[in-house]
Amino acid sequence: MTTATGTTMLGLGAMGRALVAALLKAGHPVTVWNRTPGRAGELIERGAVEAGTVHEAVTAGGPVVVCLYDHASVRQTLTPVADALRGRTVVNLTTTTPGEARELAAWAEERGVAYLDGAIMAIPPMIGAPGAQILYSGDREVFDRYRDLFDLWAASTYDGADAGLASLFDLAILSGMYPLFSGFLQGAAMVRTAGVTAAEFAERAAPFLAAMTGSFAHTAQLVDRGDYSAPVQSLDWTITALETIARAGREQGVAPIPVDMVTALVRQQIDQGHGSEGFDRIIEGMRPA
Amino acid sequence: MTTATGTTMLGLGAMGRALVAALLKAGHPVTVWNRTPGRAGELIERGAVEAGTVHEAVTAGGPVVVCLYDHASVRQTLTPVADALRGRTVVNLTTTTPGEARELAAWAEERGVAYLDGAIMAIPPMIGAPGAQILYSGDREVFDRYRDLFDLWAASTYDGADAGLASLFDLAILSGMYPLFSGFLQGAAMVRTAGVTAAEFAERAAPFLAAMTGSFAHTAQLVDRGDYSAPVQSLDWTITALETIARAGREQGVAPIPVDMVTALVRQQIDQGHGSEGFDRIIEGMRPA
Ligand SMILES: NC(=O)c1ccc[n+]([C@@H]2O[C@H](COP(=O)([O-])OP(=O)(O)OC[C@H]3O[C@@H](n4cnc5c(N)ncnc54)[C@H](OP(=O)(O)O)[C@@H]3O)[C@@H](O)[C@H]2O)c1
Ligand SMILES: NC(=O)c1ccc[n+]([C@@H]2O[C@H](COP(=O)([O-])OP(=O)(O)OC[C@H]3O[C@@H](n4cnc5c(N)ncnc54)[C@H](OP(=O)(O)O)[C@@H]3O)[C@@H](O)[C@H]2O)c1
Repeated sequence: MTTATGTTMLGLGAMGRALVAALLKAGHPVTVWNRTPGRAGELIERGAVEAGTVHEAVTAGGPVVVCLYDHASVRQTLTPVADALRGRTVVNLTTTTPGEARELAAWAEERGVAYLDGAIMAIPPMIGAPGAQILYSGDREVFDRYRDLFDLWAASTYDGADAGLASLFDLAILSGMYPLFSGFLQGAAMVRTAGVTAAEFAERAAPFLAAMTGSFAHTAQLVDRGDYSAPVQSLDWTITALETIARAGREQGVAPIPVDMVTALVRQQIDQGHGSEGFDRIIEGMRPA
Repeated sequence: MTTATGTTMLGLGAMGRALVAALLKAGHPVTVWNRTPGRAGELIERGAVEAGTVHEAVTAGGPVVVCLYDHASVRQTLTPVADALRGRTVVNLTTTTPGEARELAAWAEERGVAYLDGAIMAIPPMIGAPGAQILYSGDREVFDRYRDLFDLWAASTYDGADAGLASLFDLAILSGMYPLFSGFLQGAAMVRTAGVTAAEFAERAAPFLAAMTGSFAHTAQLVDRGDYSAPVQSLDWTITALETIARAGREQGVAPIPVDMVTALVRQQIDQGHGSEGFDRIIEGMRPA
């Protein structure tokens, strides 16, 4: 029924809609499908063609971009149309673990489907705007062939043939982001008790914490060498600092949950006899037991 | 016995020595004291005068700068010389909680001692070099009088008459720093399982996380308003993302302790019925119960 070639998008959630909008804005034809029909509204006015079934959507022509809720929904959606996908290209932008991405890549390979995995480091309003990044890994040819398309969404990087790498980098970086945000909020809770606004605190904290990322390169050297001896600040020193922060929090009526998490990691290393070594040694407490 | 005027420094730990070195480098006379004698070595060669007792040190002339281990050591050191301190100035750079700083300020006020509290946001090698910051609060006149001296150490800010404010800001900002470092290390542990070095990860993570501090201003607006409705990403959405990170960690054999801490804060808000609101609401879970 639909005749548009160009790109197919499976999934019109907040992110799928943003991705489609960026393609349409660049004059690129798009066929869309969503489990619950009728979500394409505005996008159709701007030129998208809505397919009635997944089968119709994936046979429309170009690469099949998938942006669904999670890995299970991707499997549920693609499994019934596996035959129709043979010889075609799937670009999966759904957030998955590296293991799930590798599983989908293997599934695709068995069925003669070219598979590229992607991890979106942006929120929907950032798509097509500066600052957005999408990481890709898996089939290099797919990346090279559609690179120009991908660049309509975000800055695109290719991270390697292992389909799990894009999500691995994405999730590893987010592993830094969420604790950063939580710690910032702990700080805001603390200053609030002295009548300081979060806005004033943000002005002070943002440049300092941004600058602190400058120390990652040095931390990384120590981690790669596995050598935490000879620190500027030992774990024994650090635990006093952490306990002072926690005490200050409690004094002000704040539950210092993010800092207590760090204290537990530090104490574990001290209890194992590493008190004279450096903070970065806490990574060893996150290794498999 | 000693005749140097200028500044007195109580405490020649790693930080005290760095502070003294910066003053000497600028040609500023310094009298030093340390509980364990004989630590002044090199500093004496460069012009410092070592006092035999705390009393001798605090009566040498100028402002008395204190940089000891903790609040208890400051109380122990200053209490016996309270009479000698009357009419003098104490600048306490020891890390304390805001409550401890306020207690010292009250103690000083009762004894006719001018008191300025300071919080050092730097490690010893940064003292006297760009990037170091020292926050001050308490007696404004003391800050203004010795500002030039302070600027030899670091960029100096005056945060207010409440002596607790400098440590409050310091500790609140460090509340962001330690979770950031811990989360970065979790990420490094995750990518390591795919043979990616921490160095390569640092190059990717640092600019992204530095850029993320740009969102603090927006977060702060929401926190100051206490309005977490209408988020771009709801808590219900975020918990799926967090669980994907944790699952990815466990898949790779990494214990995702920093992210699990965030998940617990998010789940608490969801359990209280706020799943449709935004992430920043987790600050409410750190408030007094
Ligand atoms: N939003 C962001 O800020 C953001 C950022 C980075 C990455 N991502 C990732 O992008 C993906 C999509 O996110 P989103 O924000 O667009 O989510 P969303 O608004 O919740 O949309 C979810 C989409 O998945 C579909 N879906 C759910 N279960 C399904 C199933 N079993 N079978 C078929 N379709 C199903 C939904 O269809 P219905 O309309 O029928 O429910 C909808 O199209 C997620 O993996 C997310 O992690 C999002
Ligand atoms: N080092 C850093 O990176 C850093 C960064 C920011 C803030 N600070 C703060 O600066 C302060 C000093 O740190 P530091 O690195 O110099 O520590 P340090 O190297 O461990 O030195 C501790 C100092 O405190 C003295 N001391 C300990 N207990 C005492 C007591 N009961 N009575 C009298 N003196 C006592 C020690 O004297 P002895 O020689 O006799 O043991 C020594 O001079 C701390 O509050 C720390 O939190 C340090």
